[in-house]
Amino acid sequence: MTILYGFDLLGTLVFAISGTLSAANKKLDLFGAYFTGFITAIGGGTLRDIILGNFPVGWISDINYLIVISVGVALTFLFKKHIMTLKRTLFLFDTIGIGVFTIIGIEKSLSLGIHPFLSIIMGLFSAVMGGVIRDTLCNDIPLIFRKEIYAVACLIGGILFIALNSLGIASALNQFITIACIIIIRIICIRFKISLPVLKY
Amino acid sequence: MTILYGFDLLGTLVFAISGTLSAANKKLDLFGAYFTGFITAIGGGTLRDIILGNFPVGWISDINYLIVISVGVALTFLFKKHIMTLKRTLFLFDTIGIGVFTIIGIEKSLSLGIHPFLSIIMGLFSAVMGGVIRDTLCNDIPLIFRKEIYAVACLIGGILFIALNSLGIASALNQFITIACIIIIRIICIRFKISLPVLKY
Amino acid sequence: MTILYGFDLLGTLVFAISGTLSAANKKLDLFGAYFTGFITAIGGGTLRDIILGNFPVGWISDINYLIVISVGVALTFLFKKHIMTLKRTLFLFDTIGIGVFTIIGIEKSLSLGIHPFLSIIMGLFSAVMGGVIRDTLCNDIPLIFRKEIYAVACLIGGILFIALNSLGIASALNQFITIACIIIIRIICIRFKISLPVLKY
Repeated sequence: MTILYGFDLLGTLVFAISGTLSAANKKLDLFGAYFTGFITAIGGGTLRDIILGNFPVGWISDINYLIVISVGVALTFLFKKHIMTLKRTLFLFDTIGIGVFTIIGIEKSLSLGIHPFLSIIMGLFSAVMGGVIRDTLCNDIPLIFRKEIYAVACLIGGILFIALNSLGIASALNQFITIACIIIIRIICIRFKISLPVLKY
Repeated sequence: MTILYGFDLLGTLVFAISGTLSAANKKLDLFGAYFTGFITAIGGGTLRDIILGNFPVGWISDINYLIVISVGVALTFLFKKHIMTLKRTLFLFDTIGIGVFTIIGIEKSLSLGIHPFLSIIMGLFSAVMGGVIRDTLCNDIPLIFRKEIYAVACLIGGILFIALNSLGIASALNQFITIACIIIIRIICIRFKISLPVLKY
Repeated sequence: MTILYGFDLLGTLVFAISGTLSAANKKLDLFGAYFTGFITAIGGGTLRDIILGNFPVGWISDINYLIVISVGVALTFLFKKHIMTLKRTLFLFDTIGIGVFTIIGIEKSLSLGIHPFLSIIMGLFSAVMGGVIRDTLCNDIPLIFRKEIYAVACLIGGILFIALNSLGIASALNQFITIACIIIIRIICIRFKISLPVLKY
């Protein structure tokens, strides 16, 4: 759990940075940027814990999340031009982040006796809802509804995790395989410009 | 309760279809459409259960909701042109859906000792909040704020339900009368183009 | 607590009026206006109670909030032109409202053993999230992200409250000082047009 906890904080950091960058796009002020970074980072996990009835929600009983988010927002403010050039690194960390959030959501749900399929949905919520709330607050249609195999990578990773879990694979190995799988799917989809069909009338 | 449970699943199905159709309007991809259908179907009940502190929320402990929603989204994808021609049938099912959701919300609230007026609001939330979240995610001002006697039909139905309930009418009969009342109000308002006054400066 | 309770209801009233006025700007109908006023008034406290796991949320177990909100919406409908001329009075009450909501949020959080820094964030959520939800529903980027030292006044007030609290100042006196401080900061910032820097690329 300690490695996962470290990755959880890393994912939180990257999500705070992505939220703050979104805010910069919308010309929000310092407070709006901090707030957007904060919500992006904790939104998914908060919604998951609320739906599961798992109170108090994660970040409210662990000050480390607030510290990590504050660091992320401050870094973005101070080094925004430099951070923009680190797109590949950010992309990698972001993908690790959604992988970790997916796994944490699934494991928490399974431990509460939730049906495996619904646990996958809770894993997905953990990973994507922060971004959905960020886009909704910034008055955009959520990015994951329109572009990229982002959520689907989590979904496939989640199904793999549940499958390996039911085969009795050790949790740490399973976590590693699942995150690797999510990273590979995202990279392949971006390289080959694979996207989902659009529903039209 | 079993008849109401069946209608609850029917309402969930219809709401999933309406959410998926909204997504098609916005040219969302397959995932975005599924997600929007899902949120539309479970949003109202989820918010009601969260406010009431009624955990875990309904759909997370009953896999049938996920199944019904998946069927609704798949049907919309496969037969979207055909479904568009079924407007009257969809309208009827949708109205049954909001009637059922209103009643379920009120009965749950009353059973938890909530004040009757506030129980009506919880019934209203159950019925309309899924659509409000759908419209907000799709970057529209919620439809129920601008058009149609939709929410008001629920509100009047809710007041009728509470009144008959306090008179000691049997629950099943009361449910039937209330749903019939909500359907009739909606049909009358649409036929005669009755709408609420708009607040202007 | 009784004085604070009275101010809480006053704040709820003012927030209901501000929500209804927003709805008028967007040409919402009577129901949309009531709904927006309602959500604006109870949104912040509801979100705070949900995150803290403090169920049932405040307004669902106390009918007075519903009554006060209904009065606020009705007053706005009946006397909207007159209310628009009372901008200064509204501004003062609104500022008292955010001050009271900040303090209530902090005190509730501290009493549940939440870390003081996180308690300040819960105070801030109580004060500003109603307005954030109002703006999101009305399809605007939240006002507090773009204009005015609104949230920062709460933040500074919250830090002051925690500092004085840790020095053992009596709660009632501390409440008075904090609200006065929030009012003074807002007035100074508006008079001298002080605003936060905007994050740009």
